Amino acid sequence: MGIEDLRASIHRGDFKGPTAGLAPGLIQANLIILPKQYAYDFLLFCVRNPKTCPILEVLNDGSYLTKLLAHKSDLRFSLPKYRVYQKDGSFSEHSDIKDFWRDDFVSFLLGCSFTFEDALMKSGIGMRHLEERHNIPMYTTNIKARSAGIFKAQTVVTMRPIPSSLVPKTYSITAKYPLMHGAPIHVGSPLKIGIASLDSPDFGSPSSIKDGELPVFWACGVSALNACLNAKLDFFITHSPGHMFISELVEGSLNEF
Amino acid sequence: MGIEDLRASIHRGDFKGPTAGLAPGLIQANLIILPKQYAYDFLLFCVRNPKTCPILEVLNDGSYLTKLLAHKSDLRFSLPKYRVYQKDGSFSEHSDIKDFWRDDFVSFLLGCSFTFEDALMKSGIGMRHLEERHNIPMYTTNIKARSAGIFKAQTVVTMRPIPSSLVPKTYSITAKYPLMHGAPIHVGSPLKIGIASLDSPDFGSPSSIKDGELPVFWACGVSALNACLNAKLDFFITHSPGHMFISELVEGSLNEF
Repeated sequence: MGIEDLRASIHRGDFKGPTAGLAPGLIQANLIILPKQYAYDFLLFCVRNPKTCPILEVLNDGSYLTKLLAHKSDLRFSLPKYRVYQKDGSFSEHSDIKDFWRDDFVSFLLGCSFTFEDALMKSGIGMRHLEERHNIPMYTTNIKARSAGIFKAQTVVTMRPIPSSLVPKTYSITAKYPLMHGAPIHVGSPLKIGIASLDSPDFGSPSSIKDGELPVFWACGVSALNACLNAKLDFFITHSPGHMFISELVEGSLNEF
Repeated sequence: MGIEDLRASIHRGDFKGPTAGLAPGLIQANLIILPKQYAYDFLLFCVRNPKTCPILEVLNDGSYLTKLLAHKSDLRFSLPKYRVYQKDGSFSEHSDIKDFWRDDFVSFLLGCSFTFEDALMKSGIGMRHLEERHNIPMYTTNIKARSAGIFKAQTVVTMRPIPSSLVPKTYSITAKYPLMHGAPIHVGSPLKIGIASLDSPDFGSPSSIKDGELPVFWACGVSALNACLNAKLDFFITHSPGHMFISELVEGSLNEF
């Protein structure tokens, strides 16, 4: 399926799967949509945690059309799966959010590590969640993000098993993607960052780890979801973890000048 | 004068000069203080213009004590010269802002290109404004910053004359300081970016340009001052251009993890 067919399929609500491995090389992004009353604190939370919540685009109040990451992509339809959260932390999943839209919403798009997976694979570093055809495993750690107003969170990480001999190469490749969480924040010891079992991710599905491989962890934008849950917002919308916004840009093309 | 003596002298109000060339290697920062009602739009303005207004630290509402850039530095005293602006765009200059402080103020510290001057000089690239002992020349250009809410501005630049043979080296050194405006945004043709005469800077004093040198331009945090003036804020405070906050950190030590 070509990229335009994929976009159309997502927009129609036909494609509802995770987006890792799709649209190689294009920037993928987390989406958080909040009522304006929470927007300052949330923007500051992202600014104070640039590796965990790297800001790619913030839309004007009430707008659902992207400007930077894609030309007028309609965020009410352009992700494969959304979660709509209520104040008690319960959520429902939807393939579009047209019926929920409000004029006081502010939409935030944050960098996603799926963006650098193509570069890793082109360097001979396999992605287990793609080989095993499941959503990437994500874990809530004991690493505290910096707080901002009502928002506080333990950092969420993605995990990719990497042969130990390829860890340095993995580090240097992903470090070149600072807006996509950049280099890993931990290698090797899940317990040290508060992960009791790699078999039970908080989001996504577990990846098998083979002999000679180490679990490698990257900061993940789903940390923002946890921050919103902790803040007990009246209402917010996010992508379903792993089901990202696919931009029209390649990394490095987001320059101001 | 050692750095601690310099800090004490600034705090007492004795040292009131520009800070270029002082505290070699330490991060220097622009300061903007706004009433909270303007803080979301301003924060978004900075986020949308990361090269011009790179955010180093945003203090909690009402706080004047830094956390990241220095341990509890009191922003009411820790800059050599402040400008206090009224709604009509008029301003008065002060060596401290104790008498103006309000609990609804939010303080923003943005990266400053003075930070990388020591690295340039150590590579044999001279700084004319230091040699000539005057404040760096700054110019308002025709390069539009991205707008956010009430904030819009033409980008302000600093100018340093550089021998043409050293321009590539200058580029590669300053590119390593992305939070301090990074690489130049223009070289050689002031008219192309809307500067009619290098002899008449909008802020600071002109630098002489010698045979074989090119004028090299970097984005400057004073763009934020112009954005505040354009927005006709009721009230705001900023550093006097060139009279920066001197942090306790070296560039590269601002990491989240």
